[in-house]
Amino acid sequence: MISLAEAQQLDARDPLAARRDKFALKPEQIYLDGNSLGAMPHAAQQQVAAVTQLQWGEDLVTSWNKHAWIDLPFITAKKIAPLIGAHRDQVVVCDSVSVNLFKLLACALSLRPGRLRILTQQNNFPTDLYIADGLSDLLKHASYRVEKVPVNRLADALDNDVAVLLLTHVDFRSGHMHDMQRLTQAAHAAGALTVWDLAHSAGALPIALDDWEVDFAVGCGYKYLNGGPGAPAFVYAAARHHNALSQPLQGWMGHAAPFDFAPDYRPRKGIAQFLSGTPPIISMAALDGALSAFDGIDMTEVRIKSIALAELLISQVESPPTLKTLKLASPRSAEARGSHLCFQHEQAYEIVQALIDLDVVTDFRAPDLIRIGLTPLYTRFEDIWHCVDRLQKVMVNKLYAAPQYASRKSVT
Amino acid sequence: MISLAEAQQLDARDPLAARRDKFALKPEQIYLDGNSLGAMPHAAQQQVAAVTQLQWGEDLVTSWNKHAWIDLPFITAKKIAPLIGAHRDQVVVCDSVSVNLFKLLACALSLRPGRLRILTQQNNFPTDLYIADGLSDLLKHASYRVEKVPVNRLADALDNDVAVLLLTHVDFRSGHMHDMQRLTQAAHAAGALTVWDLAHSAGALPIALDDWEVDFAVGCGYKYLNGGPGAPAFVYAAARHHNALSQPLQGWMGHAAPFDFAPDYRPRKGIAQFLSGTPPIISMAALDGALSAFDGIDMTEVRIKSIALAELLISQVESPPTLKTLKLASPRSAEARGSHLCFQHEQAYEIVQALIDLDVVTDFRAPDLIRIGLTPLYTRFEDIWHCVDRLQKVMVNKLYAAPQYASRKSVT
Repeated sequence: MISLAEAQQLDARDPLAARRDKFALKPEQIYLDGNSLGAMPHAAQQQVAAVTQLQWGEDLVTSWNKHAWIDLPFITAKKIAPLIGAHRDQVVVCDSVSVNLFKLLACALSLRPGRLRILTQQNNFPTDLYIADGLSDLLKHASYRVEKVPVNRLADALDNDVAVLLLTHVDFRSGHMHDMQRLTQAAHAAGALTVWDLAHSAGALPIALDDWEVDFAVGCGYKYLNGGPGAPAFVYAAARHHNALSQPLQGWMGHAAPFDFAPDYRPRKGIAQFLSGTPPIISMAALDGALSAFDGIDMTEVRIKSIALAELLISQVESPPTLKTLKLASPRSAEARGSHLCFQHEQAYEIVQALIDLDVVTDFRAPDLIRIGLTPLYTRFEDIWHCVDRLQKVMVNKLYAAPQYASRKSVT
Repeated sequence: MISLAEAQQLDARDPLAARRDKFALKPEQIYLDGNSLGAMPHAAQQQVAAVTQLQWGEDLVTSWNKHAWIDLPFITAKKIAPLIGAHRDQVVVCDSVSVNLFKLLACALSLRPGRLRILTQQNNFPTDLYIADGLSDLLKHASYRVEKVPVNRLADALDNDVAVLLLTHVDFRSGHMHDMQRLTQAAHAAGALTVWDLAHSAGALPIALDDWEVDFAVGCGYKYLNGGPGAPAFVYAAARHHNALSQPLQGWMGHAAPFDFAPDYRPRKGIAQFLSGTPPIISMAALDGALSAFDGIDMTEVRIKSIALAELLISQVESPPTLKTLKLASPRSAEARGSHLCFQHEQAYEIVQALIDLDVVTDFRAPDLIRIGLTPLYTRFEDIWHCVDRLQKVMVNKLYAAPQYASRKSVT
């Protein structure tokens, strides 16, 4: 184990240390749940204040043009594109991850007529499974089937009946990271398309969607992109597919000429066809402002710090005998992980609550995981030290056994 | 025509006059486009500031429980329910009008197996038509058909092949208002269900969804409800249908136990099953705060003022010979109208731009309509007087012919 002073020395040498000043975090705040809800960048708050006070408040409806609200889904997307290795005009911000997955899966199925299976992993993030099932149920006349297999059976299940391989890049529980390039190649070799969910990886580590020849992807605005609670999601669609798409949630904002109010739908060209209804501008403005925290960032540097934080956390937890009941439930190899770690313990829920009461925020994932998110833009090495220090207090003093933690209440 | 002093006397006697103080409108601001984007209530801005600064900024992820973000779709819905004549637990706030229409149409079709037509009006709001077509195209194996007929053919077209009648209560162009109760009865008599779009009526006039036995409805958060640009929409589903529904956009927030992260979808009971992904909390908080402008309101009083404003506008426009080229394009009978009026003129676009430059905001609807929205919570009789006075300046001095208005740019 290292000392607090040594952890602080690591922070002093950290080239990303100054980024924390861009966030509304107090010096004493130890927030290790940025993979559930990213901390608030000051710029997000400022942009929200501008949109309410000055734009909506004073310029009212004229702001759609005057303050370019109408372009915001693209303006914001252009800030996300370089973080995920996408060249311009392949990303748009709109709706939620769930709704966007529905659009993309429907598009992918229509691009592979005759193929009747959506292949996915059985412990994929539940909303991905629910949406695939919902689409398949809706299309019951077409006899589609969602096949959910263990990770080690994915390769075998990829045959010429699979229309689309639907996977999440980084597992929301274990933090296990797929080899996106290799699996995309395998899908293509079988004639299938890919839809990747980047919820736990966009903004956390380098991604190269274009280079890896990914077909479609969705990502979350409110985790590592720090866009605020329920921030709109983003859609990536490779340019080579744009002219052949037909997305079913065809709302007026996706029309080639929305203000003509024509009775027949004619989709906008390119990525804009993924827009549906009017976007939630205030929430989107928060995301747009938040992305300035990434200005000039090198995602490789983010990844280097993420791994250093994780390695420190593992060694600090595994060193003292007081914490030997906590079992690492994430891959031990940094290459196989995203930017969070899970530790297993029967009292995980109660431990997480006791930590919150000691001003350390991590989160619980059923049935028995303590999940600790590492956000290199604001997580300090010192935070890791304090987290483990307080975790020892919780375990040594059995604080988790306090009666107020006995009745479980869900925390997102 | 009445004089400015007479208009000001009408304001002095208006029981709703003080409501304008709840909005961030300057005394000189003449804003007649609340049916496109409602003006900002101070409470909306305050609630947004609280959600960013205090909740997201300081309490971070714990706000989902601590500040009841998780319940916000229902908390906000309970403020909308009395405005549309819905008893509790039949309304939820989420997603956009477009996305919610998709959910409701899919539900309605599944409740009427064997019936293959969605019947609607050919000049319905375009997004309603696009979404119906998108669903029908997606379900091509089931051979559904969207039938778009002129209003006078609706009754004849309602036969035993119609699964659902999809209509907008108040027409976005003409302001024509359907008799919702009578058409719902006619649909039911034919064995069909109804989906009503309340975009241009919720918050503008009394609606009695329960009493009129409506099946499903959607409504807009950012028009007469003043929830801010792209505010989330709402869904109404009559309680009698709740146990038989199957909505296809089944995201994790609609799951009976979202934090169990179970692999199989099990919908929440009741109206909550219409939730999909994580809702945009900041935009929803704006709507939630905005609704306090309706505290203690009697919608009958809102309607009485709306009609008085409209009657004044018609008589002021139709009196002077200088405005004789403007033709009323809305129903002359107040009973057949919503809360906006349209006037037709070949130079409608240019006239609307010239009015904006004279600080009167109305809007243009293609091809040739000047649309004037009357929002009784903040529109003054004096505003009507000034609007017509400046309209006369525009017409007499042919200000609309100025070269800067020649190249059309869409204004929402």
